[in-house]
Amino acid sequence: MSAAGRVPVARALAWVDAATRCLEAEDSALEKAAGRVLAADIRAGAAIPPVDCAAVDGYALRAEESLGAGAYNPLAVAATAVELGEPLPPGTDAVVPFDQAEPDETGRVVLVEPAAAGANVDRAGAVAAAGALLVAAGTPLAPRHIGLLAQSGVASVRVVRRPRVRLVVAGTPRSSQPVDGNAAMLRALVGRDGGTVSEALLADVFGGGADIVLVAGGTGRGQRDRSAAALSATGSLDIHGVALAPGDTAGFGHTVEGVAVLLLPGTPVACLWNYELFAGRAIRRLGGHDGSLFYPSRPAVAAKKIVSAIGLTEICPIRRLPDGRVEAMAPFAEAGLASAVQGDGFIVVPETSEGYPAGAQILAYFYDEDRIRAEPAS
Amino acid sequence: MSAAGRVPVARALAWVDAATRCLEAEDSALEKAAGRVLAADIRAGAAIPPVDCAAVDGYALRAEESLGAGAYNPLAVAATAVELGEPLPPGTDAVVPFDQAEPDETGRVVLVEPAAAGANVDRAGAVAAAGALLVAAGTPLAPRHIGLLAQSGVASVRVVRRPRVRLVVAGTPRSSQPVDGNAAMLRALVGRDGGTVSEALLADVFGGGADIVLVAGGTGRGQRDRSAAALSATGSLDIHGVALAPGDTAGFGHTVEGVAVLLLPGTPVACLWNYELFAGRAIRRLGGHDGSLFYPSRPAVAAKKIVSAIGLTEICPIRRLPDGRVEAMAPFAEAGLASAVQGDGFIVVPETSEGYPAGAQILAYFYDEDRIRAEPAS
Repeated sequence: MSAAGRVPVARALAWVDAATRCLEAEDSALEKAAGRVLAADIRAGAAIPPVDCAAVDGYALRAEESLGAGAYNPLAVAATAVELGEPLPPGTDAVVPFDQAEPDETGRVVLVEPAAAGANVDRAGAVAAAGALLVAAGTPLAPRHIGLLAQSGVASVRVVRRPRVRLVVAGTPRSSQPVDGNAAMLRALVGRDGGTVSEALLADVFGGGADIVLVAGGTGRGQRDRSAAALSATGSLDIHGVALAPGDTAGFGHTVEGVAVLLLPGTPVACLWNYELFAGRAIRRLGGHDGSLFYPSRPAVAAKKIVSAIGLTEICPIRRLPDGRVEAMAPFAEAGLASAVQGDGFIVVPETSEGYPAGAQILAYFYDEDRIRAEPAS
Repeated sequence: MSAAGRVPVARALAWVDAATRCLEAEDSALEKAAGRVLAADIRAGAAIPPVDCAAVDGYALRAEESLGAGAYNPLAVAATAVELGEPLPPGTDAVVPFDQAEPDETGRVVLVEPAAAGANVDRAGAVAAAGALLVAAGTPLAPRHIGLLAQSGVASVRVVRRPRVRLVVAGTPRSSQPVDGNAAMLRALVGRDGGTVSEALLADVFGGGADIVLVAGGTGRGQRDRSAAALSATGSLDIHGVALAPGDTAGFGHTVEGVAVLLLPGTPVACLWNYELFAGRAIRRLGGHDGSLFYPSRPAVAAKKIVSAIGLTEICPIRRLPDGRVEAMAPFAEAGLASAVQGDGFIVVPETSEGYPAGAQILAYFYDEDRIRAEPAS
């Protein structure tokens, strides 16, 4: 493929964004909704807690009656035993923990210090007032959201439907790979990004029932490469060839029904990076997530010069040095997926850049989340 | 529960570590292994690629024969058309892309510049030499690992068995919560940490078939709180009461068969933080993951004073300000899970600390991964 025919990565990203819209909402049981994206705001139907409640196991009493209690002036006050979470009995406004009061024979309890009004009380509405926003539309539901919604009596939620991804392996086996490993990798990627996968043969690419089609392999201009021709013949091939390394034979188009089709190069590392830049973005956008790269990024310093070709957006594997700086590894074009497995992350060198000198501040993406992994202090 | 009876968080963490060991290995189809932890090193059975292969579609030729080719000295050389991934024909050592050579009528191709030996060739062993380490034991398998292993012909892997978690909801419904939402939250948390959940009644806590038991609720000292007594009566209760806010009524023990049992307070936010500090750590360690807190952390600056009680490890909710500094929100003890849902993360204030002055550098944990979420440059 000649360099002239390749479109800039920015144009391919714009194509993806124009081709993908957040899917419609569906109902999900709250219990099954972890990781799904909320499609509508959820507000509290009632205050949480609905009334003032005990925040500890103890004696509920009227704080006013304890005024003046002290070590040299023990005071007996009317009290009712309550357990954590129980509503305060009428007329009481504080709770004294069991071990800080002594019941006497009259059914009162003896205090040696005064209680403050509101002490150990969960105030009505402290977690949420009636009608307050609990979780906003667009939020990916984490366990803490599920807990708050469950506590609020929510059993079912409106979430964005999962994208249905049709995966077509169109490459022919080659001696450089004992097997075509792209299907297994792509299934894992689609699952990570919230999609569900069905597999199909190249002949079935254009059947219904999918929100997006990924075709892996057969994207080059060799005689065995039929993916682009098949898409041209039965739908539209809008872009073929992207100024990206690795993975310049990517293609973008639509079925005749208007379903987006992404052609991913069959070389495993090119398949991976085309997925990460384009297909993953499309699937995450369909599912209501934000479409940016999956990996966390942060500024880092280049320990050595990093060289890249002008005119290509290059994904360059990096490792993190013990001092926190990063250095380039053997390029993906040479070492393939091994550079992704052995490395700590990557940088994206723009088309206009020849790379960076040693000491340059660059934006680095890391595979394994940016965790310092400190132990909780104690 | 009196402060005197509560053990430091460090002691509870040490209990968890002593009670949990990485589970045994089992076989998994590679395709189903995303997120599982590899139990043994995997080495390349053969070199990848096994022989020198074409890295582009083009003409394979002997570089030596192209010496001297130039715009004013076109040279016709013997060549064989090859496709990306095909082994180089014997005697050839370079590939010239189709669009950079012109076939002539004699079956040779005409070059206007010399080819370098090795140009556009994937060298045998460039991805991995035979016997080279592909993925190390202890690695959580991401899609890129699955891709490399699939490409290497690996179809099945030895991974650490998933922890089986028995979940027992022992709390009694209280008026402050329309429903007990802990089960839904805990199921989501256990799933996130790689475990599988079965639910049981308190009476069944001590049945077989689980690697760890979580009992949610009934951990206090009220009359309806029976979790600790049940564990004492039928197994061992090693710790009851931890110097942690929220969640000081946590308990730790074993069934008579030696299975670890964690008693989690029933107040939702106390349940969450006890899970995150202790139960999640236990489940991740059982599954071969590292046991540290799930959330990514990084240094941050306190925008305002943060106050905490001496003698308690306090989990303090924070929000991130537009300038990147963080500030404390309404404490979990007051606002419950709402502070976790509305906040951006938390800090862990040690027992020995009264908090931090404005401007202090603190270690902050963030819920939503530390992603700058920059667009890929292009």
